Amino acid sequence: MKRVYLDHNATAPLRTEAREAMIAAMDIVGNPSSVHGEGRAATALVENARAQVAVAVGCNPAEVVFTSGATEAASVLATHKDGRDVLVDETAHDALWAHDHAGAWMDQRTGHLLAMGLANSETGVITQPPEKTAEGWPVRDAGSFAHADVLLLDITQAVGRIPFSFAWSGADLAVLSGHKFGGPKGVGALIVRDNFDIGPLSVGGGQEMGRRSGTENIIGIAGFGAGIAAAMRDLEAGVWDQVEKLRNILETGVEAASKETILVGKEMQRLANTSCLLTPGWKGESQVMVMDLAGFAISAGSACSSGKVKASRVLQAMGYNEADAASAIRVSLGPQTTETDVTRFVDVWTDKLNKHRFRAA
Amino acid sequence: MKRVYLDHNATAPLRTEAREAMIAAMDIVGNPSSVHGEGRAATALVENARAQVAVAVGCNPAEVVFTSGATEAASVLATHKDGRDVLVDETAHDALWAHDHAGAWMDQRTGHLLAMGLANSETGVITQPPEKTAEGWPVRDAGSFAHADVLLLDITQAVGRIPFSFAWSGADLAVLSGHKFGGPKGVGALIVRDNFDIGPLSVGGGQEMGRRSGTENIIGIAGFGAGIAAAMRDLEAGVWDQVEKLRNILETGVEAASKETILVGKEMQRLANTSCLLTPGWKGESQVMVMDLAGFAISAGSACSSGKVKASRVLQAMGYNEADAASAIRVSLGPQTTETDVTRFVDVWTDKLNKHRFRAA
Repeated sequence: MKRVYLDHNATAPLRTEAREAMIAAMDIVGNPSSVHGEGRAATALVENARAQVAVAVGCNPAEVVFTSGATEAASVLATHKDGRDVLVDETAHDALWAHDHAGAWMDQRTGHLLAMGLANSETGVITQPPEKTAEGWPVRDAGSFAHADVLLLDITQAVGRIPFSFAWSGADLAVLSGHKFGGPKGVGALIVRDNFDIGPLSVGGGQEMGRRSGTENIIGIAGFGAGIAAAMRDLEAGVWDQVEKLRNILETGVEAASKETILVGKEMQRLANTSCLLTPGWKGESQVMVMDLAGFAISAGSACSSGKVKASRVLQAMGYNEADAASAIRVSLGPQTTETDVTRFVDVWTDKLNKHRFRAA
Repeated sequence: MKRVYLDHNATAPLRTEAREAMIAAMDIVGNPSSVHGEGRAATALVENARAQVAVAVGCNPAEVVFTSGATEAASVLATHKDGRDVLVDETAHDALWAHDHAGAWMDQRTGHLLAMGLANSETGVITQPPEKTAEGWPVRDAGSFAHADVLLLDITQAVGRIPFSFAWSGADLAVLSGHKFGGPKGVGALIVRDNFDIGPLSVGGGQEMGRRSGTENIIGIAGFGAGIAAAMRDLEAGVWDQVEKLRNILETGVEAASKETILVGKEMQRLANTSCLLTPGWKGESQVMVMDLAGFAISAGSACSSGKVKASRVLQAMGYNEADAASAIRVSLGPQTTETDVTRFVDVWTDKLNKHRFRAA
């Protein structure tokens, strides 16, 4: 029986448009830094992708810096720390959170930087970014911090799934990755507001206008551009409305099967594709394994943790205790998910839950 | 008439084996950090490539850290600077050289790190790395530095072109990039000697055993592994002997046409594919442009400089004055270069030289 992939927030299958752009890019011989014809063809490919990204995220092409992913883009938090403290929202991805832990940047000096995710990878919960005031970005519930000078948004899970415009957000920086919207893994971008100074992410040849040295991943960048353009077409065509219907069928089925299961974040504004199911007493790790054996790919917590499965920091930040936070799974759908996929998921999950109850009894 | 690509040191065409491995990897859906079947398939792909790299460079698989290129790998010079000074060989690539300029690491404290390229990108000149003594790595001609504790080798231009073994070299660190040997651009590796501590290149999800966070570029990594394996087969089969014959035909032709042209590094041990031609009074930049219009891709200096064409730092370090250093071109051949390619190059270049002389007269 064919496997059912319900882990799109960990990574999504490569879109056809991205695949085709990447295969075409394989015939581009040159280095974008070379001045000859082959080099100019490579540059044209990169600049075409840059324009596609700019249209998709609502910024100017010159504000787009290609990186090897959102994690590298988030390293701007390290390069930008001089004289600034970094305040990371506690539900943010590890790629941001690690910078909060990396140094003693959280002292009470002014001039700090607020980093937050727009949509949470584990729950799909959407956080409305603050609106800038004359004093800066208002920071909620952050002790003596009242306003931040700089706002960084992690838009990785949001791009192509909800409308977003970097220009409208007013943010100074944004980070994103290609592989959540159907682009390739290992390609991302840092969006830097015009005239906003950042230290270089890396030094050397001076590529990306000196903001990120290193020969460009042109095959990956081609796929990133084509993938984000296709994702925006899907968003505008309303594909996520259909995905939301399937997600709701799944959640209705789960609620019917298990009264004690909590649908985390259901009352909040969420991504259409994400369901975080917390069943007290049934470890998420165990659920992932039994469902994997039964042919379903789901996850417990965020994928980006080298296989380590521990109680979710995000759920604990939402107020769940450690045992409950360790009893959650994430089911995340994609545009290719079918109604059969979700009804089969509910049937098999219910069967496994009943077996778990039988063993636990 | 078909264009002739003689800029393989800037970047090489993608090898068939790399292309096929990348296209196959496009069907791998999972994130290597996920524990389910799709995730394990992605992990298997990455580990297979890691083993291919280890065999090719003569190290253990656990010593290989995948990066977005040699530039990112060289950023270990920044993460490793605590308490250490970095001494960069003056003919090294900008990706290393930039770290020498990035901070005040060149004071006279002990415990310093020597970074050098094994083969120069502009001249092809091969530098024999020092042999370690009881006091450390002997540093030639470096003022008050006598020995370095740590040796980093940039093997980017050497891999697949000359025999090299990381284990035999005794080096602590090595950096390489995929796109010189026919792998994709934007993928590279840092080789870290077993038990040698480095600060993480990036923080977040903890991938690459905590040494480099960020979801892996699995399509690129697949191409990197397949490409390096194919390059090693070519090296063992002696393809560079044939390339060297063609390079020598080219140089003999140039010498016959232009007595004043200097074949930089000809008397030194060089890569088989590289020719650095210095014709006093004829700007390298102009040569690149007229040859490009005539259908030939060559370069002046290193490509990795965002289109900036300035007098080569490397040639000035070799003792040429600025005007002469600005009058050099690099012609770099690959396994697909044909005798027709090089004889046509000599004919056209000679014609352009004569026109230059006529105008200059």
